[in-house]
Amino acid sequence: MPQLTVRGIPSSLMAVISLPLVEELAILCECGADNFTVDCIETVSVMDGKRVETFPFIEVAWFERGREVRDRFAEAISRHARLAGVTDMEIAFKVYQTDAYYINGKSCSVV
Amino acid sequence: MPQLTVRGIPSSLMAVISLPLVEELAILCECGADNFTVDCIETVSVMDGKRVETFPFIEVAWFERGREVRDRFAEAISRHARLAGVTDMEIAFKVYQTDAYYINGKSCSVV
Amino acid sequence: MPQLTVRGIPSSLMAVISLPLVEELAILCECGADNFTVDCIETVSVMDGKRVETFPFIEVAWFERGREVRDRFAEAISRHARLAGVTDMEIAFKVYQTDAYYINGKSCSVV
Repeated sequence: MPQLTVRGIPSSLMAVISLPLVEELAILCECGADNFTVDCIETVSVMDGKRVETFPFIEVAWFERGREVRDRFAEAISRHARLAGVTDMEIAFKVYQTDAYYINGKSCSVV
Repeated sequence: MPQLTVRGIPSSLMAVISLPLVEELAILCECGADNFTVDCIETVSVMDGKRVETFPFIEVAWFERGREVRDRFAEAISRHARLAGVTDMEIAFKVYQTDAYYINGKSCSVV
Repeated sequence: MPQLTVRGIPSSLMAVISLPLVEELAILCECGADNFTVDCIETVSVMDGKRVETFPFIEVAWFERGREVRDRFAEAISRHARLAGVTDMEIAFKVYQTDAYYINGKSCSVV
């Protein structure tokens, strides 16, 4: 964690973005870059009776870090994506609780 | 948003359903049909040591709209799916907070 | 429900794990094994500019059952995964509300 789950952006593009993006996010979150994961999910989107392109969307799963970090986190993702050609995208943050998050079977609120 | 993430229902079937369903949901939510996304995710489900069919499930990600709209939203999805031959399905709503949702880097609670 | 959504662990391995694991989890949750779903999602993970292996992660979606059951639930998953060769993994619990969960269009808080 933080965990970025991506849809609607090619994984090859996310690979290019990942290097500078995760470096910047790690500084912002004051944690190691190796805590991050970037997982692209294959989706088939439909609308109006037919298949359509998937709208670019990233869900960030993390432990709550407050408004200021969150704003800057979202701004950084959007900026790197825009520089790579993704002009329109949305981001949502999903908060996990530390006592409901387990690393190798041990709760993060105990570790 | 609202964003429907679908598993266990073929995307070709969801395409057929999408036209009348999203029209009805848009009226219910008093927003444009172009706010909706319907994304089908490929899953491999397992049970009892072997691969099994994925149980039809739709997660609706949205901003909270209250019990009445939610009940009617779920009823509409289930009805359209049933008419298309999906006799057994479950739906869960996942609530995003407006201040943790970003459109092109800008928080929805600021926009 | 509970619903296990898996990434970074081969579905063939999860199939092997599923039989003893779901039996144990069903006893723990005092519900039938047929309430469970185990869905593996295909992801393409990236980091440092290139594709990497997906880190093993399971999100458990369920109705809240409290700390003790949750701890034992996570311990059981981790133990079965470890026995099958998954030495490093993380688990997060996502809580659905009963009044926002619908079975065939009917809310679970009404049923």
